[in-house]
Amino acid sequence: MTKIVQCIPNFSEGKNLTTINKLVEAAKSTASVFLLDYSSDENHNRSVFTLIGSPEGIEDVVIKLCKVARDNIDMTKHTGKHPRMGSTDVIALVPIKNVTMEETIKLSEKIGKRIYNELSIPVMLYANSAKNENRYNLASIRKGEFENMAKKLLKEEWTPDFGESKIHPTAGITAVGTRNPMIAFNVNLNTNNLEIANNIAKIIRGSSGGFKDCKAISLFLEDKNIVQVSINMMNYNKLPLYRVFEIIKFEAKKYGVTVLESEIVGITPGKALVDSAIYYLQMNNFNYSSQVLENYLFD
Amino acid sequence: MTKIVQCIPNFSEGKNLTTINKLVEAAKSTASVFLLDYSSDENHNRSVFTLIGSPEGIEDVVIKLCKVARDNIDMTKHTGKHPRMGSTDVIALVPIKNVTMEETIKLSEKIGKRIYNELSIPVMLYANSAKNENRYNLASIRKGEFENMAKKLLKEEWTPDFGESKIHPTAGITAVGTRNPMIAFNVNLNTNNLEIANNIAKIIRGSSGGFKDCKAISLFLEDKNIVQVSINMMNYNKLPLYRVFEIIKFEAKKYGVTVLESEIVGITPGKALVDSAIYYLQMNNFNYSSQVLENYLFD
Repeated sequence: MTKIVQCIPNFSEGKNLTTINKLVEAAKSTASVFLLDYSSDENHNRSVFTLIGSPEGIEDVVIKLCKVARDNIDMTKHTGKHPRMGSTDVIALVPIKNVTMEETIKLSEKIGKRIYNELSIPVMLYANSAKNENRYNLASIRKGEFENMAKKLLKEEWTPDFGESKIHPTAGITAVGTRNPMIAFNVNLNTNNLEIANNIAKIIRGSSGGFKDCKAISLFLEDKNIVQVSINMMNYNKLPLYRVFEIIKFEAKKYGVTVLESEIVGITPGKALVDSAIYYLQMNNFNYSSQVLENYLFD
Repeated sequence: MTKIVQCIPNFSEGKNLTTINKLVEAAKSTASVFLLDYSSDENHNRSVFTLIGSPEGIEDVVIKLCKVARDNIDMTKHTGKHPRMGSTDVIALVPIKNVTMEETIKLSEKIGKRIYNELSIPVMLYANSAKNENRYNLASIRKGEFENMAKKLLKEEWTPDFGESKIHPTAGITAVGTRNPMIAFNVNLNTNNLEIANNIAKIIRGSSGGFKDCKAISLFLEDKNIVQVSINMMNYNKLPLYRVFEIIKFEAKKYGVTVLESEIVGITPGKALVDSAIYYLQMNNFNYSSQVLENYLFD
């Protein structure tokens, strides 16, 4: 049974095409790894890659990518809107098929160790790979950003998981973590009143008392003159799409507002949508792994 | 890109375990073919197998299966509730992945030719493989069953597509056809009034003026003391599950009856359920092939 892992590395370069192309080349250099998607944001000065492949292939490609980033991105000269602390800022790993969370955490540790040993960039483990609670949240690790990292690492609580307590002079420090698949899910409302989207985002997101596995913000979409509840679904197995969608519809009703439509940005596991179909079709005895044809098409 | 075809052969044996085991053995004898499922019905005296694999693998396995059936099932001694005309009664082929309907029709012709050339069993092509309209419907071909086939084949309009105008003395005649994936979809109603299920089945099924790609009957489920609308969805790309489900709910309302639950029997392509999720979640710009992760996991 082929093991499949997803890997989402973020690089602190969103403008220089020469560097971006070198990263793309490295991402495509291993037969057992497939580059699903990559996108660069000039404002953020940042690029996000999405890869899938065998654990060994992903390990190989990540080391190559980090070397390209280290040798081509100088963090002492980097500006951009998005918070960042390294040339390879963060690497997220996600178990996809025939691989457990535990195995993926081990892979993240192997990768972290190699990034320091072979490229001299210190590494912090975050999310499910974190060794203590205050490193679970990437934002806490990254706080202070590249410019303040040298000082931050000297504090005992911020000793890197791999490497000495000092940043790489131009590549900074990299976070490596393991998490469940995340789905970027947006719901557009038939109003331009941002307060309504904001109130609904507050109701559903975990940090303000809503669903633990839901992150949500409100946005005004200028081109459409409507507002959006923009959601990160952090664990679709525990918190299905339909539940969040129906609560948004229900709360919007209070203001006489309807849902215009929803969207998934980028890639989603098919099961996340199948789970919602099963709810709406009242299909209480459906067995995903044995009844969905695609599950037999590859092992 | 690996081509994948599904194959559903039906054999006129549902009791004799020695024969059924020989068929299972033959079904598992080729590396590139996977036996998804098989079930035998004693009342029908019939077994249905579901295989997936490469077109070449399926061709190879089907010939082996037809030989086992020919050598172990004597139609002159066969009784059972289900209509039948041969030891291998019917073989349905379904294009699944990286293969067109046209290629699958060609495969059905290749298989039909080999069944006659190598096993001396005449073959009729049906469904999308049919060479004329009156052979599209399997029931028309099979009318008269094994006992009347020798006479029927002498009529010009029923000359076999492969073979002479006479049945194999013990194995009869086999139908080979190509069709879209079919989904067996049942909806249970919160009533034991069979007339209500019957009225709804009439409304939705194509043969009585409903949806062209829908076959439906009503059933009384004795163990649960409720009625069921039992549906074959013949083309889920044209007629999605949610549309049939919602109309059943809507028509049941007329009688003050609700839908208890629905079920899919056996295997379904994941896309059929994803399509329904997209409707309920109002996800108008979703692209199945580029946004569903599983589509990248195998080529």
